[in-house]
Amino acid sequence: MTRRVTIADIAAAAGVSKGAVSYALNGRPGVSAATRAKILAIAAEMGFVPNRAARSLSVSSAQAVGIALRRSARTLGIEPYFMELISGIEATLSAGSFGLTLQIVDTVEEELEVYRRWWAERRVDGVLMCDVGTEDRRLDFVADLGLPAVAVGGPIEGARLPAVWHDDAEPCREILGYLHALGHRRIARVAGFAHLLHTGIRDNAYAETAAGLGLESMETFHSDYTGEQGARITRRLLSSAGRPTAVIYDNDVMAVAGLGVAHELGIDVPGRLSIVAWDDSPLCRLTHPALTSLTRDISAYGSQCAEALLSVIGAEPDADRTFSVQCLPAQLSPRASTGPARA
Amino acid sequence: MTRRVTIADIAAAAGVSKGAVSYALNGRPGVSAATRAKILAIAAEMGFVPNRAARSLSVSSAQAVGIALRRSARTLGIEPYFMELISGIEATLSAGSFGLTLQIVDTVEEELEVYRRWWAERRVDGVLMCDVGTEDRRLDFVADLGLPAVAVGGPIEGARLPAVWHDDAEPCREILGYLHALGHRRIARVAGFAHLLHTGIRDNAYAETAAGLGLESMETFHSDYTGEQGARITRRLLSSAGRPTAVIYDNDVMAVAGLGVAHELGIDVPGRLSIVAWDDSPLCRLTHPALTSLTRDISAYGSQCAEALLSVIGAEPDADRTFSVQCLPAQLSPRASTGPARA
Repeated sequence: MTRRVTIADIAAAAGVSKGAVSYALNGRPGVSAATRAKILAIAAEMGFVPNRAARSLSVSSAQAVGIALRRSARTLGIEPYFMELISGIEATLSAGSFGLTLQIVDTVEEELEVYRRWWAERRVDGVLMCDVGTEDRRLDFVADLGLPAVAVGGPIEGARLPAVWHDDAEPCREILGYLHALGHRRIARVAGFAHLLHTGIRDNAYAETAAGLGLESMETFHSDYTGEQGARITRRLLSSAGRPTAVIYDNDVMAVAGLGVAHELGIDVPGRLSIVAWDDSPLCRLTHPALTSLTRDISAYGSQCAEALLSVIGAEPDADRTFSVQCLPAQLSPRASTGPARA
Repeated sequence: MTRRVTIADIAAAAGVSKGAVSYALNGRPGVSAATRAKILAIAAEMGFVPNRAARSLSVSSAQAVGIALRRSARTLGIEPYFMELISGIEATLSAGSFGLTLQIVDTVEEELEVYRRWWAERRVDGVLMCDVGTEDRRLDFVADLGLPAVAVGGPIEGARLPAVWHDDAEPCREILGYLHALGHRRIARVAGFAHLLHTGIRDNAYAETAAGLGLESMETFHSDYTGEQGARITRRLLSSAGRPTAVIYDNDVMAVAGLGVAHELGIDVPGRLSIVAWDDSPLCRLTHPALTSLTRDISAYGSQCAEALLSVIGAEPDADRTFSVQCLPAQLSPRASTGPARA
């Protein structure tokens, strides 16, 4: 017996995403008229028959995607990352006529309970999971539930759900190479939560690259991403005897706080201290000097995550859910906060 | 015939909000055991009979509240205000077992269409409307729809829906009085969107107070709340002949950008320029010098808005929907960015 033609087969033949095929077949917005026509023609040619069970399920669907964020209100308010991510997610969801349901949770137990309830009551058709951890029991939990889900982060070894991720190691090598070329040998890093997957990937990449370059010191201090902790760690670093000549921050808010501490201590940036930020929100261009940053398009990343989730939601129940989407890595945007090291 | 006892009557008798009464009567979380017992006792004493139609409607409710934000992804990402507001809204909704549905829209037409669809499909039980304008056709639109709604802003004259608001005029008088006492006579203001209700209230309050104090100049420049525009206006102001000795910004992001421009031009803050920000997010304490701000608890404000909406959702269909909740006005938090004017 011939195997049934799936949405994935049509996507491969048409050279488009599974999400695009799903939009086209379901008559939803989100693809151009030309692409829709091409996809429908290919689907007809391949003898595609929609799965009735899946179709009827989809009709009674919630037409909504859920995000449960386990972050304090305080962090969420100040960090541009989440709102930029959400705005990108929103753009794709709206195009596919899906809504976004947001819930802020305090603990991982609460988060799992939210997923259980959302799915039991069919309040959402799928979820996006942020802040992927090195050991993350949420991943198996949602897979066991059968709740369509996409991890916003990765790569995740042996994952039972799709991950959409950036290479976090390459930018670490780039930034250390750049600072090394400027003559910096004592570099410090103010990192984010130690338990997060991407923090660990960066930890390893910095350590390996620093060893390869023969840096005098490359210390890492983990924090909670808030300006308060960024300032506190920077104050300690800049008050120490063999103080670093360059500091790398894992987000923009901590970098802005670090620059404030340098001003406060009368340490010229970049004369006596170079500063590098990750996540190039407009914040990095508001300060003086403007901050050298690792730039990535967070809104576009959000869109790609939402697209992956819609393709999972629109796919056959037995479709492969372990695909992995690698996005463009962050690029170095040198600005006025970095310069040659002075002894 | 005796008038039926309503939730509002019980709330007045018990000295609690209508939301609290609704929680207690419906056995939902959100009120303490003691308060619940007290409310139930008072309700029984007053002979309260739940409206069956409302009750059955509530059972088949969406258990969700919607927010459609008409702001660019870029503004939303950088401005802490919305995420702080949303985190406060979320806290109250979660306590009442309500979800939050978020939609970003481009135009007011799109926003009205979202309300229409949400209500027609009962995807939400009510909406919170941000960015209330001086002439705001959304207000009549949702009232005509019968969609429970609360305006996040006010006061709104002749409104057919509840408004939760701060007095925006009083803080304007306070800040001008403070700057005047410091000897400032040439003051400029970088304001937000001119069409917003609270911008207009501030415009008037500043103009009247400046006239009363006999200031030499008190100019206002409207903007879009972005750091880019804040920086551009500040650069022009500080490059002009009779440049102001103090600048007031309508949000924190523009104030941070303004401080960056002062650094860029080598103008000492507060030596030659005083800076005041509205909306005291942690951003204001990350800069050096830290920014003098008009502080309000935005997260608490979000909670009050959500509470008002839940009380409307839980109320009788014929209940009064024109109540108005006045929250505490913003308070001046003087920090290092303001000081005596020098000629």
